[in-house]
Amino acid sequence: DFLNALENDIKPAFGTSGELLQMMLMRGIINWGSPVAHVLEDGMLLIQQARSAESGGLVSVLLEGPPNAGKTALAAQLAKNSDFPFVKICSPEDMVGFSESSKCLQIRKFFDDAYKSTLSCILVDNIERLLDYGSIGPRYSNLTLQALLVLLKKQPPKGRKLLILCTSSRKQVLEEMEMLSAFTAVLHVPNLSKPEHLLSVLEESDVFTKQEVAAIARNIEGRRVFIGVKKLLALIDLLRQTEGDYRVAKFLSKLEEEEAIEIRG
Amino acid sequence: DFLNALENDIKPAFGTSGELLQMMLMRGIINWGSPVAHVLEDGMLLIQQARSAESGGLVSVLLEGPPNAGKTALAAQLAKNSDFPFVKICSPEDMVGFSESSKCLQIRKFFDDAYKSTLSCILVDNIERLLDYGSIGPRYSNLTLQALLVLLKKQPPKGRKLLILCTSSRKQVLEEMEMLSAFTAVLHVPNLSKPEHLLSVLEESDVFTKQEVAAIARNIEGRRVFIGVKKLLALIDLLRQTEGDYRVAKFLSKLEEEEAIEIRG
Amino acid sequence: DFLNALENDIKPAFGTSGELLQMMLMRGIINWGSPVAHVLEDGMLLIQQARSAESGGLVSVLLEGPPNAGKTALAAQLAKNSDFPFVKICSPEDMVGFSESSKCLQIRKFFDDAYKSTLSCILVDNIERLLDYGSIGPRYSNLTLQALLVLLKKQPPKGRKLLILCTSSRKQVLEEMEMLSAFTAVLHVPNLSKPEHLLSVLEESDVFTKQEVAAIARNIEGRRVFIGVKKLLALIDLLRQTEGDYRVAKFLSKLEEEEAIEIRG
Amino acid sequence: DFLNALENDIKPAFGTSGELLQMMLMRGIINWGSPVAHVLEDGMLLIQQARSAESGGLVSVLLEGPPNAGKTALAAQLAKNSDFPFVKICSPEDMVGFSESSKCLQIRKFFDDAYKSTLSCILVDNIERLLDYGSIGPRYSNLTLQALLVLLKKQPPKGRKLLILCTSSRKQVLEEMEMLSAFTAVLHVPNLSKPEHLLSVLEESDVFTKQEVAAIARNIEGRRVFIGVKKLLALIDLLRQTEGDYRVAKFLSKLEEEEAIEIRG
Amino acid sequence: DFLNALENDIKPAFGTSGELLQMMLMRGIINWGSPVAHVLEDGMLLIQQARSAESGGLVSVLLEGPPNAGKTALAAQLAKNSDFPFVKICSPEDMVGFSESSKCLQIRKFFDDAYKSTLSCILVDNIERLLDYGSIGPRYSNLTLQALLVLLKKQPPKGRKLLILCTSSRKQVLEEMEMLSAFTAVLHVPNLSKPEHLLSVLEESDVFTKQEVAAIARNIEGRRVFIGVKKLLALIDLLRQTEGDYRVAKFLSKLEEEEAIEIRG
Amino acid sequence: DFLNALENDIKPAFGTSGELLQMMLMRGIINWGSPVAHVLEDGMLLIQQARSAESGGLVSVLLEGPPNAGKTALAAQLAKNSDFPFVKICSPEDMVGFSESSKCLQIRKFFDDAYKSTLSCILVDNIERLLDYGSIGPRYSNLTLQALLVLLKKQPPKGRKLLILCTSSRKQVLEEMEMLSAFTAVLHVPNLSKPEHLLSVLEESDVFTKQEVAAIARNIEGRRVFIGVKKLLALIDLLRQTEGDYRVAKFLSKLEEEEAIEIRG
Ligand SMILES: Nc1ncnc2c1ncn2[C@@H]1O[C@H](COP(=O)(O)OP(=O)(O)OP(=O)(O)O)[C@@H](O)[C@H]1O
Ligand SMILES: Nc1ncnc2c1ncn2[C@@H]1O[C@H](COP(=O)(O)OP(=O)(O)OP(=O)(O)O)[C@@H](O)[C@H]1O
Ligand SMILES: Nc1ncnc2c1ncn2[C@@H]1O[C@H](COP(=O)(O)OP(=O)(O)OP(=O)(O)O)[C@@H](O)[C@H]1O
Ligand SMILES: Nc1ncnc2c1ncn2[C@@H]1O[C@H](COP(=O)(O)OP(=O)(O)OP(=O)(O)O)[C@@H](O)[C@H]1O
Ligand SMILES: Nc1ncnc2c1ncn2[C@@H]1O[C@H](COP(=O)(O)OP(=O)(O)OP(=O)(O)O)[C@@H](O)[C@H]1O
Ligand SMILES: Nc1ncnc2c1ncn2[C@@H]1O[C@H](COP(=O)(O)OP(=O)(O)OP(=O)(O)O)[C@@H](O)[C@H]1O
Ligand SMILES: [Mg+2]
Ligand SMILES: [Mg+2]
Ligand SMILES: [Mg+2]
Ligand SMILES: [Mg+2]
Ligand SMILES: [Mg+2]
Ligand SMILES: [Mg+2]
Repeated sequence: DFLNALENDIKPAFGTSGELLQMMLMRGIINWGSPVAHVLEDGMLLIQQARSAESGGLVSVLLEGPPNAGKTALAAQLAKNSDFPFVKICSPEDMVGFSESSKCLQIRKFFDDAYKSTLSCILVDNIERLLDYGSIGPRYSNLTLQALLVLLKKQPPKGRKLLILCTSSRKQVLEEMEMLSAFTAVLHVPNLSKPEHLLSVLEESDVFTKQEVAAIARNIEGRRVFIGVKKLLALIDLLRQTEGDYRVAKFLSKLEEEEAIEIRG
Repeated sequence: DFLNALENDIKPAFGTSGELLQMMLMRGIINWGSPVAHVLEDGMLLIQQARSAESGGLVSVLLEGPPNAGKTALAAQLAKNSDFPFVKICSPEDMVGFSESSKCLQIRKFFDDAYKSTLSCILVDNIERLLDYGSIGPRYSNLTLQALLVLLKKQPPKGRKLLILCTSSRKQVLEEMEMLSAFTAVLHVPNLSKPEHLLSVLEESDVFTKQEVAAIARNIEGRRVFIGVKKLLALIDLLRQTEGDYRVAKFLSKLEEEEAIEIRG
Repeated sequence: DFLNALENDIKPAFGTSGELLQMMLMRGIINWGSPVAHVLEDGMLLIQQARSAESGGLVSVLLEGPPNAGKTALAAQLAKNSDFPFVKICSPEDMVGFSESSKCLQIRKFFDDAYKSTLSCILVDNIERLLDYGSIGPRYSNLTLQALLVLLKKQPPKGRKLLILCTSSRKQVLEEMEMLSAFTAVLHVPNLSKPEHLLSVLEESDVFTKQEVAAIARNIEGRRVFIGVKKLLALIDLLRQTEGDYRVAKFLSKLEEEEAIEIRG
Repeated sequence: DFLNALENDIKPAFGTSGELLQMMLMRGIINWGSPVAHVLEDGMLLIQQARSAESGGLVSVLLEGPPNAGKTALAAQLAKNSDFPFVKICSPEDMVGFSESSKCLQIRKFFDDAYKSTLSCILVDNIERLLDYGSIGPRYSNLTLQALLVLLKKQPPKGRKLLILCTSSRKQVLEEMEMLSAFTAVLHVPNLSKPEHLLSVLEESDVFTKQEVAAIARNIEGRRVFIGVKKLLALIDLLRQTEGDYRVAKFLSKLEEEEAIEIRG
Repeated sequence: DFLNALENDIKPAFGTSGELLQMMLMRGIINWGSPVAHVLEDGMLLIQQARSAESGGLVSVLLEGPPNAGKTALAAQLAKNSDFPFVKICSPEDMVGFSESSKCLQIRKFFDDAYKSTLSCILVDNIERLLDYGSIGPRYSNLTLQALLVLLKKQPPKGRKLLILCTSSRKQVLEEMEMLSAFTAVLHVPNLSKPEHLLSVLEESDVFTKQEVAAIARNIEGRRVFIGVKKLLALIDLLRQTEGDYRVAKFLSKLEEEEAIEIRG
Repeated sequence: DFLNALENDIKPAFGTSGELLQMMLMRGIINWGSPVAHVLEDGMLLIQQARSAESGGLVSVLLEGPPNAGKTALAAQLAKNSDFPFVKICSPEDMVGFSESSKCLQIRKFFDDAYKSTLSCILVDNIERLLDYGSIGPRYSNLTLQALLVLLKKQPPKGRKLLILCTSSRKQVLEEMEMLSAFTAVLHVPNLSKPEHLLSVLEESDVFTKQEVAAIARNIEGRRVFIGVKKLLALIDLLRQTEGDYRVAKFLSKLEEEEAIEIRG
């Protein structure tokens, strides 16, 4: 009937992992400051540990930070850096409208497949969405939570190595769910917080001229900054359509509107 | 059996999007004041951003305001203005009695279809109804909430552009559900609030004579006004059936009854 | 098997709408006082609005008041007065034991059918029962609530006119469910509250003689009255079986027992 | 399989109504005091009202009182007294393990059948059990509650008469569920409360000799009594097995143990 | 598939009732003190009442006491003493993993079968487990509760006699569920509470020599004792493996560890 | 369809019990201090009790302690030490994504199989995960809880012996669920708490030289230690990749970072 037809119509169209990683990294990783470098370095160490023959065989990492901070892109970068032959992306975007149990089965399948490869990496994006976390109630899928709690600690078979990379913007919720302690390591992905961070990004973009950047630099000098790299890139996109002089003023006013820079006293 | 027969009988009869937009705009958009202009202008900018080749590919907008303020009509106007070749209306009116999961599948299908076009616009009307929000409890469909939270942020495939236009009269609830932050922009659609707003609408209607409008103007001068354009048009409808002199007095008394104008001290 | 057999056995036996209206009006409408006239007049205006070619096409009315006040009979009277060719009764009495979703599908079917006629009237009786409202908890069918919230505001197709008449004795609950604001108009159906109201009904009945009515009049003069017309008619029924003198005394004592008249200090 | 086999094995074995009434009245109705007479008289009046040609066609009565007070037996007696050709017993005893919806369908079937007869009587025993009322929570079947709330007020078809007799020991709960107001009348079935009540029952039994009854009478003179007739008959049963002298003393001590008579200060 | 295969694999393997009773009584009933005698005597009286031709036909008994007190064994002993031809054991041990409704159907089947015999005895073990009582929440199976509430009071057909023996260690919970009042009688099965109780059990066992028992007697004289007979027998089991001298000391220290005897001040 | 395919794809791949035990013991049991010896000794006594011909036939043991303390490995060691011919591992790792009822059926099957062998040992790992315990709510599977509460106390058939070994890091939760009292014995598995505990483990590893261990010993002398053996082994793994001098310093700083050693005042 009609509804069944609907359902049959909706088959997840998983891209290959390589394509998906590429998609997540479409705008690259701009090295806007030390926090970026730090996450990449720590990530590299954990990748080596996961790879090492004498180690336990399982390394699980959480990248957590505010919305738009760049968590997903950095996780994708680490997955790419690992150069593991088996990489899978487990993302809520591919499971929209799935029932609890379908989600769990799908997640389990990712892990079961990974256990069959020697060097596997699973990127679990946006854990709170995977858990169907709804803040009114609150509500969440306990079935999925239990699955993750077990899978994050489950040793792959002898001789197999597994690297799990997760992202979340709800560290507090994961803590209450007693999931945080299941990770080998937790890496913090912060917002940009200093004028120089912001200027680094502007310089990388092809929208502002040197003079414009300089004008902005003068203006924001000494002001606190607080904006995620994704939001900032979107703002720059918006301004791409504006013209000359107006652009700098508009950019600054938009930043203030979004409370991305401190309002001058 | 009987109930199955019932169910089979009820196939959603989706009109074409063009017809549906037309329906939503049946009474047109009266430019009763600056807030109307403002929403249309801001909307235009966002449409351009959605369309631009260099931008991210996804723009999502919320039109929020009190019941009857004209949110749905304005969203329809923006959809029309976008002139995007693919436009779909996702409205609770077409999903009455659907189960949670049928709703989700339907919503997902709208998006999956949109991802296949180069320039797509989805109008998601009355989000709180789509979420089955019941204020006693409160209750809501977490399945649908999770689907929307993901879809509002999900990038269309490379090279595809998607504009999402949503309406809601429960901004506070969306905030608690942490949905507000998922939008690229939030536009406020207010009630009429000044005598001149009200008079603009009266002048556009074919019910009141110039003299009658003048009489009303004298009466409401300096009084605060608070009424949605939809409610106001309905009131005018009611008066269409009344006669001459009586009409102005009746109109004013009805306005007071509905607390649409300040009661004189 | 046994239970299926049961279920198959239970097919709703919908009478024709005319018969059902007749049933609801079996005892007629006694004009016991101004509130009755008022509801009928206001109702007539709303019927005209629904019928008018230039109007929006949708008028929804709630008749609310205490249990036994005569809400259902008055709604039936308005439906009859409308003289609309398509009239449907949507009553919980025909849906006993239906599941949430069967109720919703049934309700939806009534509306879908109505949209196909030029002039349609739907009488939705006893909304709180339709919503399965249970005051311990409280509990209610959110599926049905959402369906009604949408259907009460959904415009019929172009050129079609729809009049929705609803009854309820739980105005407060509907308010909490944010359903009240969905109605075009809310009409209050009160209990009888004055001695003359009560006497009007007695005079219409064939049970009391003129002398008996006069005796009752003397007795209740100046006392507050509070009783629904349905309850009053039932009391008169009970007394039909009693004899002569005894009848007046018994009637008055029963009224006091039911707290339908003020106890004399 | 095993469980299905189980289910198929369990077909309700409804006795005929006559047999069931007989079963409920196995120990007859002892006229132990004025409350018994009062319930029977009031019941008779209501039966006449239900039967009367000019009346509304529906009379619904609740017999409520403490556990073991004799509610079910008295309801059965009234059903028998009515002498209505169609009598059905709707009892939780015949629906053990039924799902909510099976219960509802069964109840509905009883009523649908009744509507087909000219003079019908339905005895609904132990409403709180039919509603699956569990005091921890509390929990109850809202589906069944809604069905009863509607059926207790639903007019039988024109010309048909329906008498509904219900029993319950949880009047307070029914009040909270707003069910009490659905009844035409509520009759209270009390426990025995005076020594003479108790002696009436003893005299009717074939267990105690005249002398023994006299001895008991002397003993309990002036003491408050509080026991249901069912409990009292069970106690007498127990003593049937004891001998001579011992019997009176044992009887009195058991009464005190059960707090059925006031402990002497 | 796999899970169905699992389910099919799990058919309850009910032993015959005789075997099951034997199993419950494997270690016999040691007459360790007056409470044991008291339960057996009271039980005998109730058995006679159940058996008697003139009585009501239904006797239901609850044996309640702390965990390990010997409730199940005593209930089995009573069932054996009754010498009723039909005896069934209704135990949660045979229903592990059953759904609510399977449990109910199973329970109902036990009773339906019993109603077919002239003299039937049903032993319902561990009611709180049968009700799936979970103290966090709390949670319980209302379906099963309702079934038991009805079945504990349901008269067997004319001429049939039914004795119901139940056990529970959660009297308080049954009280809150309003189940206690459904029993004809409630018998308390206490823990051992005096030194002589404990010594009776030791003497019955083949583990301790006369001298050892005497040594223990001297030690525990005047100390309060609190231990269930099942726990005590298990402790004796443990010591069976220890040797000579060490045994008495170890026994006493274990008793103190388990807080089974008062710690000397 | 797609989801069914998924489900069919996921068959639990139970290794043989021997392999699974081996896996759990991959890194052996290091005798780092008296608590380890104590658990092994007590465990041995309980194994003997389970094995003894005269005893009751059932011994159930809980190994509880903080996360990473080594509970699972010690339970596996005890299972191995028992040398029972039938050993089964019941672990949440093999039931990811199972429904409540599938879990229960699986658990039941383990026990049903065990009852068929003369000497059986079941290792139930990580009870709180098996119970799907989610701390927000909290939520848990009552079906599984009830199954375990019954199975932990259910006597195997005559002549059969059953040893149940469970692990948990949520003793408090088990207590609230009234499960603790179902165990024959509860053994505590603590974290390492003294410098010498830590040094024992370092000495066993092949990572640190004698000099390095000595250096660490000097450093941590007199400081409180608090770390689970699993965590400690993982830390050593990480350091395996570092070089010479740096290793000791890094190790100490990591210990402080993880709050595994007291920070010097
Ligand atoms: N240093 C950087 N770190 C992360 N992302 C960067 C960086 N520089 C540029 N980007 C770009 O910024 C965007 C970050 O978006 P991303 O989806 O990773 O954010 P997010 O934190 O996952 O957002 P959300 O909270 O919505 O999940 C990507 O397009 C990425 O290519
Ligand atoms: N300036 C305007 N803005 C919006 N609507 C207008 C305007 N002028 C006229 N209208 C008409 O007013 C009506 C507004 O109704 P609409 O359904 O959009 O309101 P709404 O805010 O969506 O109501 P609801 O809260 O019930 O969803 C439409 O018929 C529209 O044609
Ligand atoms: N003026 C009146 N208004 C309404 N009903 C009247 C009037 N005069 C007589 N009646 C009769 O009184 C009865 C009113 O019953 P009705 O079922 O309409 O009450 P109700 O308020 O809907 O009750 P409930 O609260 O149980 O739904 C009907 O039989 C109707 O014929
Ligand atoms: N005057 C009386 N009224 C009611 N029952 C009587 C009376 N005299 C004798 N009996 C007998 O007492 C018993 C009353 O039991 P009944 O089942 O009616 O009590 P109940 O109040 O319905 O109990 P429960 O609370 O368990 O439902 C019946 O066996 C009935 O024959
Ligand atoms: N006097 C006695 N009363 C009861 N049981 C006794 C007595 N003497 C010896 N026993 C033995 O003690 C054991 C009592 O165990 P039983 O299972 O009856 O306890 P229980 O109270 O039902 O425990 P639980 O609370 O776990 O259900 C049985 O093995 C029984 O044979
Ligand atoms: N004395 C010891 N006791 C326990 N485990 C030890 C010991 N010595 C070494 N080990 C090793 O330490 C590891 C302990 O891990 P294990 O999984 O048993 O911890 P756990 O307490 O069950 O953790 P979790 O809380 O995650 O379930 C195993 O690899 C085991 O081989
Ligand atoms: Mg992300
Ligand atoms: Mg709208
Ligand atoms: Mg009504
Ligand atoms: Mg009864
Ligand atoms: Mg027991
Ligand atoms: Mg473990």
